Amino acid sequence: MRLTVYTDYTLRVLMYLGLKGGERATIKEISDCYGISRNHLMKIVQDLGRDGVIETIRGKSGGLHLAKAPEEIRIGDIVRRAEPDFQVVECFGTAPSGCRIAGSCLLAGALDEALTAFLEVLDGYTLADLIKPQRNLRSLLALGTAAR
Amino acid sequence: MRLTVYTDYTLRVLMYLGLKGGERATIKEISDCYGISRNHLMKIVQDLGRDGVIETIRGKSGGLHLAKAPEEIRIGDIVRRAEPDFQVVECFGTAPSGCRIAGSCLLAGALDEALTAFLEVLDGYTLADLIKPQRNLRSLLALGTAAR
Repeated sequence: MRLTVYTDYTLRVLMYLGLKGGERATIKEISDCYGISRNHLMKIVQDLGRDGVIETIRGKSGGLHLAKAPEEIRIGDIVRRAEPDFQVVECFGTAPSGCRIAGSCLLAGALDEALTAFLEVLDGYTLADLIKPQRNLRSLLALGTAAR
Repeated sequence: MRLTVYTDYTLRVLMYLGLKGGERATIKEISDCYGISRNHLMKIVQDLGRDGVIETIRGKSGGLHLAKAPEEIRIGDIVRRAEPDFQVVECFGTAPSGCRIAGSCLLAGALDEALTAFLEVLDGYTLADLIKPQRNLRSLLALGTAAR
């Protein structure tokens, strides 16, 4: 069972920005730091901006920063937005399922309940919770030792 | 977020066998019924046999049937066995993670907790729960209308 790489990287970007405090970051900086391609990050940053989670400032001294406090960014919400679908099994998709029992099968309901439980746990976490070992995390990301 | 096709098909095979009652089924029959390739099913049946969930009888009048009552087959257990890994994000894998913050990141813990919640919901379901609309399901699978 996997989340997409897109979701994984989205969470990494937010953690990076959270650890920067109010300071602006650039896509190049995040790309270099995590070793993630800039192309991958461009789309993620664009989507996070559109969703109002981060703010992007154009121009020479531009960059990006969180648009909300880390305490206000729920991880469950981020995962819900970032995952392209929650097609846990084939019959969850929007396309008609090829499975003959799709109409009467109770598996989809059980999996849906399980998925809800998964996301509810993540609703209990905010970005602030994930970046609590600030000193260590800032050091690993070469952000210096001064926490916000 | 997705389970593998292997897990999806494993659950379908078990539902089919559950709906057959004690009667033997063949791989060909299940393959024809769901439109799933026999090659796919061979591996699934082999693994379910090895795990003691089904019994396979060789020979001309051979076939397969559940080795336990549907009430004793927990869906959480089946999913745990069938999924090759639960690498929800990259750093869950056994290979060293390329992520610089892997050592201090709290995301993995949050996702692990969410995954546990997901599987615990499925532990609350047995195969018997999933095949309750027996009449409809048997009819959709062209198994006749007589329930066990």
